Amino acid sequence: MDFTVETATDAVMESFQQTGNPRLRQVMESLTRHLHDFVRDIEPTLKEWEEAIGFLTAVGQKCDDTRQEFVLLSDILGVSMLVESLNGSEEGTESTVLGPFHMTESPSRELGASIDLLGGNRPCVVSGRALATDGTPLPDTELDVWQCDENGFYDVQQPDVQPPGNGRGLFRTDAEGHFWFRTVVPSPYPIPTDGPVGDLLKATGRHPYRPAHIHFIAHADGHRPVTTHVFVADSPYIDSDAVFAVKSGLITEFTESGDEQDTQRFGVSAPFAHARFDIVLEPETPQ
Amino acid sequence: MDFTVETATDAVMESFQQTGNPRLRQVMESLTRHLHDFVRDIEPTLKEWEEAIGFLTAVGQKCDDTRQEFVLLSDILGVSMLVESLNGSEEGTESTVLGPFHMTESPSRELGASIDLLGGNRPCVVSGRALATDGTPLPDTELDVWQCDENGFYDVQQPDVQPPGNGRGLFRTDAEGHFWFRTVVPSPYPIPTDGPVGDLLKATGRHPYRPAHIHFIAHADGHRPVTTHVFVADSPYIDSDAVFAVKSGLITEFTESGDEQDTQRFGVSAPFAHARFDIVLEPETPQ
Repeated sequence: MDFTVETATDAVMESFQQTGNPRLRQVMESLTRHLHDFVRDIEPTLKEWEEAIGFLTAVGQKCDDTRQEFVLLSDILGVSMLVESLNGSEEGTESTVLGPFHMTESPSRELGASIDLLGGNRPCVVSGRALATDGTPLPDTELDVWQCDENGFYDVQQPDVQPPGNGRGLFRTDAEGHFWFRTVVPSPYPIPTDGPVGDLLKATGRHPYRPAHIHFIAHADGHRPVTTHVFVADSPYIDSDAVFAVKSGLITEFTESGDEQDTQRFGVSAPFAHARFDIVLEPETPQ
Repeated sequence: MDFTVETATDAVMESFQQTGNPRLRQVMESLTRHLHDFVRDIEPTLKEWEEAIGFLTAVGQKCDDTRQEFVLLSDILGVSMLVESLNGSEEGTESTVLGPFHMTESPSRELGASIDLLGGNRPCVVSGRALATDGTPLPDTELDVWQCDENGFYDVQQPDVQPPGNGRGLFRTDAEGHFWFRTVVPSPYPIPTDGPVGDLLKATGRHPYRPAHIHFIAHADGHRPVTTHVFVADSPYIDSDAVFAVKSGLITEFTESGDEQDTQRFGVSAPFAHARFDIVLEPETPQ
């Protein structure tokens, strides 16, 4: 039977019949169905098809050791967040995107240490507890933290300006599940726009900015790990994150504080911003 | 409103509201809808999502001046043929995929010239007419022809073995629309398998072969151009082309001939293979 607009999808789906891995077969059949539906919906001209091939090629070729343009594309199309949401916790702290800057190992630091190696202008204390969904404290929870500096750049983006590990730290909660560390209030920043994804944002009238946030990955024995952010309440772009990662439960007040006991306890000078939140982890799903 | 599995698609579609170009907006909205449907259908794990990002990145990075891996991916998913079919002729010769080897200019040749610069074993004559859909001959029709050699390779794949332009020719039909040239019978061949698309074919139990064919692009004043192949009847893989390009109307007998008049007329020695077909072009659609 001839390959036509009508028979195309069956023909391609049939070609995957011999796939050994049943999950791969399911994925390829579903991809074929949805991709063909998309093509039939928009009816691209040959020139548009060539432009799409050229765009995808440019996205791949923009990737290197410190840049992942396909992750950015997935991010701005809401696919990364959709996958996160499909895999997210139901009762614990909500997850959000990993983002492209978790590409280097965070240095181990003592509780209370500062991850701001440059001495920024807006000192900040982050504190809280790791808890199980039933409220039990989770001691020895590993917290991998990374954030941009006050100018909106991660250490890996500015190897000539920032020391490696600036804005990064690997902490472990104490015997009561507490964590605390010092940093600076992060800044909103644009995702990298000097590639094809930036061109697409421009062509579609979208801004590239993300509201200010601190990244976390929390691991505790016997619990599902969570990859998430804490968003700075009232940050610019909190309602229009370029990568759709904001969830209202992750928005946290960074309260201006002059509390004397706290300045002593955390080793900061007043005034400082204080972000308080707990990280709640679900029990591991039995496999 | 929070970004959830349910609200994701509306949120991303809304982000394209400010797109200046209405066609781009339509494409991005349709892409969002179909891509999200696919993701919701397969519910990828985070690891599978990472594998997909890695695959697409590898496809982009395999591309260079003489290799277009995203075209190959489009080909083996039937997308190239679907786009061709959506843009194809309704009454004239059917179109099929351009393929990745039309990357160099074909040398102008006189009618009757040979495009086989190596002196192959199975001489072949290709002849026919360019006609309008009402049967009127189309003189001065430009025929851009390219094919692989008897071992299944195009000149650009073997710069050390084949002279540039081997298997390629740019012809013009005579005053009665006739064309004829000499060549060798092409061979079936595998699409390049040393990249991520080859890995995907292997993982899905698909072979990489294409049935033997000669490529054409025909242009005539006042008519819609056509990009197509002539397939060698009874070629291996004629029923399972890796890129789904076979249409029954494009399959042509390469008849073994010893006709003395023909050997003289075409300047070949008997026996030779003779492929006869006409190329029919539709009137240009008024813009």
